[in-house]
Amino acid sequence: MVNGKVLIYGGRGALGASCVQYFKKNNWWVGCIDLAENESADVNIVVDRDADWVSQEQNVLSKVQQSLSGDKLDAVICVAGGWAGGNAQKDLAKNADLMWKQSVWSSTISATVGANYLKEGGLLALTGACPALGATPGMIGYGMAKAAVHQLTKSLAGKDSGLPEKSLVVSILPVTLDTPMNRKWMPNADFGTWTTLDFVAELFHKWTKGEERPANGSLIKLVTKDSKTDLVISE
Amino acid sequence: MVNGKVLIYGGRGALGASCVQYFKKNNWWVGCIDLAENESADVNIVVDRDADWVSQEQNVLSKVQQSLSGDKLDAVICVAGGWAGGNAQKDLAKNADLMWKQSVWSSTISATVGANYLKEGGLLALTGACPALGATPGMIGYGMAKAAVHQLTKSLAGKDSGLPEKSLVVSILPVTLDTPMNRKWMPNADFGTWTTLDFVAELFHKWTKGEERPANGSLIKLVTKDSKTDLVISE
Repeated sequence: MVNGKVLIYGGRGALGASCVQYFKKNNWWVGCIDLAENESADVNIVVDRDADWVSQEQNVLSKVQQSLSGDKLDAVICVAGGWAGGNAQKDLAKNADLMWKQSVWSSTISATVGANYLKEGGLLALTGACPALGATPGMIGYGMAKAAVHQLTKSLAGKDSGLPEKSLVVSILPVTLDTPMNRKWMPNADFGTWTTLDFVAELFHKWTKGEERPANGSLIKLVTKDSKTDLVISE
Repeated sequence: MVNGKVLIYGGRGALGASCVQYFKKNNWWVGCIDLAENESADVNIVVDRDADWVSQEQNVLSKVQQSLSGDKLDAVICVAGGWAGGNAQKDLAKNADLMWKQSVWSSTISATVGANYLKEGGLLALTGACPALGATPGMIGYGMAKAAVHQLTKSLAGKDSGLPEKSLVVSILPVTLDTPMNRKWMPNADFGTWTTLDFVAELFHKWTKGEERPANGSLIKLVTKDSKTDLVISE
């Protein structure tokens, strides 16, 4: 017997894979949605990178339905995303398009999966970004996409958003995550200010179990200092 | 001799056509960017609805360059947009995709045109929406797109956004515009709370001439009561 069922959108990425591991270790059925499979997951839903938004949504929805065989989900956790810099001078459409696909397509598809397959009281967790709370002139496409995720989080917490009764929708806003790639590219940074992947996975696990839940629609900054992470609610 | 050159993105729509008329009447060279031509404009740049974001950007940039024959622009005014309702239950990708194309593609392409062809001290005006300052659970795609335009406005006002020195970027946030379509669909509304198209066109004209300019990066609500419109700066 498992505790319940969760889906990790972006379950092949560094944070996503940690979440898959964490939930598996704690005896949950885990589905992974990503561009490639995560063999630790119970079910993999592979997204076609070249398909358009509507096709990706339909494909994911139908495969989620098949894989649940009538059950409902305790959590949909979207940690898919990416980063691109660039200002308005050059390649704005190209950069913004990529950011939109990586952060917003995954978030809205997670929202629709949540609206259709979450249990009452289930969790939908999305991933925003602290800098997008203000101006991001050097990474304009990234800022727009994350600002859209923030506003989506508020909308989904509103009345008649389509999510089930008593569900919780939140976005985490990490500053820097302690991933192998970040260690590689910023070898001289103060790792004590980076948030560990296990901390985030544990946080999602608590919220999924109904423990220490923040207010619905919260944007939650993960602020790490001296290897200790505080949750700071934005606004 | 004309006063200078302005581009209206969405110059075939109700508000856009009013802006084209207003600037023409006041002796400006006016270019129109839209899905169809506005015969009052000096130059028309027709966007292919089926082209992708990058292709639309490149097409518009090259045609703007041709049409300016070495001159620079005094203003780029983007009033393109649309509206779609819908929550997370159904058709979110479809609705959000349309809203993104109508509001965000046009805004970012305007930003890149501005970065490359505005004069020092030129105006870039975009169009946001009051409701997207908060949650929009019944029109999720619309809210995300307009929230992205708001954040874009702030980013473009930031350092090294790519816009020329001393340029002004602002978004107007109309509540309801007094258009023929709105009169048709809401015949019993209080028209005294609707903002006239001429008021908005005149506002853009003043800002283009450098008069009564608000702070850079402002989101400006157009609040109309008893047929009088106040500008209310958000945040």
